[in-house]
Amino acid sequence: MNGSFELKGKVVIFATGNIHKFNEARVVLAQHGIATGMLRAKAVEIQSDSLTEIASVSAQDAYKRCRLPLIVEDAGLFVDALKGFPGPYAAYVYQTVANKGLLKLMENVKDRKATFRSAIAYCDSENGETVCFTGQATGEITTQEQTQDKSAFGFDPVFQPEGKAKTFAEMTLEEKNRVSHRAQAIHKFAEWYIKQGHVKS
Amino acid sequence: MNGSFELKGKVVIFATGNIHKFNEARVVLAQHGIATGMLRAKAVEIQSDSLTEIASVSAQDAYKRCRLPLIVEDAGLFVDALKGFPGPYAAYVYQTVANKGLLKLMENVKDRKATFRSAIAYCDSENGETVCFTGQATGEITTQEQTQDKSAFGFDPVFQPEGKAKTFAEMTLEEKNRVSHRAQAIHKFAEWYIKQGHVKS
Repeated sequence: MNGSFELKGKVVIFATGNIHKFNEARVVLAQHGIATGMLRAKAVEIQSDSLTEIASVSAQDAYKRCRLPLIVEDAGLFVDALKGFPGPYAAYVYQTVANKGLLKLMENVKDRKATFRSAIAYCDSENGETVCFTGQATGEITTQEQTQDKSAFGFDPVFQPEGKAKTFAEMTLEEKNRVSHRAQAIHKFAEWYIKQGHVKS
Repeated sequence: MNGSFELKGKVVIFATGNIHKFNEARVVLAQHGIATGMLRAKAVEIQSDSLTEIASVSAQDAYKRCRLPLIVEDAGLFVDALKGFPGPYAAYVYQTVANKGLLKLMENVKDRKATFRSAIAYCDSENGETVCFTGQATGEITTQEQTQDKSAFGFDPVFQPEGKAKTFAEMTLEEKNRVSHRAQAIHKFAEWYIKQGHVKS
């Protein structure tokens, strides 16, 4: 990764209060020659089964507050055997019952398939329009927490992506970015953003 | 309860898609001489730890859509040992892991204290102001589902209010309304509403 002083073109503002999300996005965007700014805007989040809808409404709200072109991300973890729980409310579920609670719900459950999903919404005007990009990573819920780091992000210690021998929390940021839902959505956004002529090469 | 043909004064519009909530509110409001209309408006619901905030934003949104004075209710179940889970997301948690999931999380947990909370928001103008009323019922999470009725409402089969030998799901609507969080909030709203002169006696 090059230092930001070598980056050409505009900075993309990422409205988030989550440093894990910001760091993951920053590294992906830098691969496309885009610098990232973090804006700790408290944007409204709606309740919805649709991550795209949640991210869209947040992006519109954040844009209205700061009048800067920006992206917002919403992510969720959908466990098949739990009918999509914790879904878009992964953050609240993590703050309350956390990984231990999820593992308890999955005790003696054979079907461990789960999908992490991400939706990025870009907004640069007040007309309410957003452009959205999605990514997903399928995998399995492990039977115990596996992490390198006590401060690992959310459900990363119990999610092992398909075809990998490590959980998200055992991977380096670069390894996670090669397969993660968030990185996929950010890559799609970056490709579109560059095509729009926002970044000069 | 008197028939609605004997009711004096205005009808209160309750914006909800939930027939259980509507029926409980209708009976309480009738005790105050207020008739209730059900409006199946799909109002926005935000993500927040504050039921009052969720209900307020929904009431404002529902008012903008239909331009009728109305109430919206938001409720949640907060289990002490689970740090407030499922909280304001009780509906999604119920649709996914349901009572069985909550009981699994509470296996071998001694402290079974839980609180059902309700927030009612009333909105009658576009200035964004709402008037809010809250109620709560403390009790315990049972160790198994106890219900008279397979189609019982949400977490009612696993919540036993303090000082009672039955769960909410084993009570008649009238019994539940004597102690429930929702009935308390609705009573407070009704008393305020009448004082405002909305209902002529």
